[in-house]
Amino acid sequence: MSIDVSDIPALARGCAVLGTGGGGDVRTGSLAAARAIREYGEVPLVRLADLADDALIMPLSGIGAPTVSHEMIHSEDEPKRIAEEVERLFGRPPSAVMSSEIGGSNGVAPVAWAAQLGLPLLDADGMGRAFPEVQMVSMYVAGLPADLVIMTDVAGNVVTIRPVDGLWSERLARAVCVAAGSSALMADYVLPAARARGAVIEGTVTRALEIGRATEGASPTGAQAAGRSPADPLGALRDRLGAARLITGKLTDVERRTMGGFVRGTATIEGTGHDRGRTLTLELQNENLVAVENGRVLAMVPDLITVVDTETAGAIQTEGLRYGQRVTVLAWPCDPLWRTSKGLETAGPRAFGYELDYVPVEELTAHG
Amino acid sequence: MSIDVSDIPALARGCAVLGTGGGGDVRTGSLAAARAIREYGEVPLVRLADLADDALIMPLSGIGAPTVSHEMIHSEDEPKRIAEEVERLFGRPPSAVMSSEIGGSNGVAPVAWAAQLGLPLLDADGMGRAFPEVQMVSMYVAGLPADLVIMTDVAGNVVTIRPVDGLWSERLARAVCVAAGSSALMADYVLPAARARGAVIEGTVTRALEIGRATEGASPTGAQAAGRSPADPLGALRDRLGAARLITGKLTDVERRTMGGFVRGTATIEGTGHDRGRTLTLELQNENLVAVENGRVLAMVPDLITVVDTETAGAIQTEGLRYGQRVTVLAWPCDPLWRTSKGLETAGPRAFGYELDYVPVEELTAHG
Repeated sequence: MSIDVSDIPALARGCAVLGTGGGGDVRTGSLAAARAIREYGEVPLVRLADLADDALIMPLSGIGAPTVSHEMIHSEDEPKRIAEEVERLFGRPPSAVMSSEIGGSNGVAPVAWAAQLGLPLLDADGMGRAFPEVQMVSMYVAGLPADLVIMTDVAGNVVTIRPVDGLWSERLARAVCVAAGSSALMADYVLPAARARGAVIEGTVTRALEIGRATEGASPTGAQAAGRSPADPLGALRDRLGAARLITGKLTDVERRTMGGFVRGTATIEGTGHDRGRTLTLELQNENLVAVENGRVLAMVPDLITVVDTETAGAIQTEGLRYGQRVTVLAWPCDPLWRTSKGLETAGPRAFGYELDYVPVEELTAHG
Repeated sequence: MSIDVSDIPALARGCAVLGTGGGGDVRTGSLAAARAIREYGEVPLVRLADLADDALIMPLSGIGAPTVSHEMIHSEDEPKRIAEEVERLFGRPPSAVMSSEIGGSNGVAPVAWAAQLGLPLLDADGMGRAFPEVQMVSMYVAGLPADLVIMTDVAGNVVTIRPVDGLWSERLARAVCVAAGSSALMADYVLPAARARGAVIEGTVTRALEIGRATEGASPTGAQAAGRSPADPLGALRDRLGAARLITGKLTDVERRTMGGFVRGTATIEGTGHDRGRTLTLELQNENLVAVENGRVLAMVPDLITVVDTETAGAIQTEGLRYGQRVTVLAWPCDPLWRTSKGLETAGPRAFGYELDYVPVEELTAHG
């Protein structure tokens, strides 16, 4: 199959849901994707199994400071410079583009990069959601050496990092990004298809498209419904995600501090209807990381927690949370990779400073 | 000729003189050089004319934050990792090591790096003195594209920068250095011998050795004379440098502020003997940049200004200036490359924030 201009709104909505509040504004990536498809044609979506063992996969993401996701539109030269550097270093050009992070803007923008390079997009990503740091990718958790990061910026600089490990790759890539004006395009874990098997999260572009189609008519930022929509978009979305509904209610308090672009805070939702009398608090660090009711944790990272507009089922990103919004909080299981001990060490609650032992969302909500 | 352990003290003294107050403590580089020669044997010193046109020259320097020079001892693995990256990128190994900066520690330490790599040292450098920033090198002034910087740190990370220009190379290299713990080994302007002709400052290792031999017996930091020394080390040094004597006197005031490792300040010298009644003020920014007497400038960057111990003629670095020291301030012409318009734009007085039009030291001191 291919991704055409008409698929972009659904893809964007799906990526916003998988962004769990973070991952950057999907609208910028959508504009770039639609424009690139109009200019270069639709983008073939390929499965990992379709690629020859030695076909090079080039995972791309926009990196901002201080978080991975960045919604700046990159110039066409940036993916070309990265592809040239890949060819120089590997002796052959990349065969496919992959999104490093399906959640948020970095899930949509790779469609533009693939179109500009005339390459297919791999139906996979490195997170299955959004995360703020470079080493929080499946390839790292799968134990692949973080041995190469290629970055370029709007000025035209190209920086190649051969880090000793994933934590150094984050540290050095972030420093380069800040020096480059806090926005860069990055390829990390460029790898042949044979090594990608089991180390990337497959099917996530298709999944984002399906999620987006389940909420047809919702604006990607959850503002208002527009055009035709399913009779019960929220129900359709829950079914598609296999998500638990943590609460339906009204946003009564949002506390947010932006420190150097990193958003920390809490959001409080007071139940309405069946949930009247209940209060849910979300702990935010760009993404929604922990959901608590009366001291009891209902869901925690790396499981996905997304706030959606109760009527349209459109995802609301952290920066879009406003007093009085009628919202529903959904939570559903992350990819099994994140539940391994290396996965939890990399992106479990303690990696974000919460003194919590990870318990899967389906256990926490079984008797809820 | 070759550089042996017995040459290191003279080389260190000469590099300290050429450091014009900055460039890092030569003692650390000296220890590393002596140790490496004992382990790997003496280091051949080759002239540019001795190298085949396509022989790769690898200019190396320790980079600290915020200045180029850094006196940390680098592990043996660091030059090896850089040489491996050069071979990977150019398809052939480097043929010679060059000091990027002959002034200070970076003038001596390349002897260690060359010994460890089993390579000769080129009798040349990129400054003819010490300067604080990455783009302040002769290759930049000569118009060579700053198209490649290779860095490595003690952790083992290797970062390759393909900057769009010299200013970006400084900005990105500095950011990587800070992220790497404020110390890294760097190769920039790796180039074949054919391109180096006219773009490096030749003969500077020999010059440093000769300067050092003229002050035999002086400690490299000018503390005390030891062993045999010439009858008139100061006169021997002046003759060797072709230097003007700006003043001989006593250090009466030193004002220094260290901001993030960058030293700024002034030093005041009151004349004694023939110079009784005169007062000279030095403007410092790691290096000695401007010498002023009664509002009249006697010497300015990029010409070289060095404070030496009046008795031993050993150079005193900026950090070593102390009230009461008996000193002589010498100034002499920089390499002609720095007097071109690109040279002055890169490292003239205005590049350091002084609203001065450059006038050569020999004109300023002709009637002094």
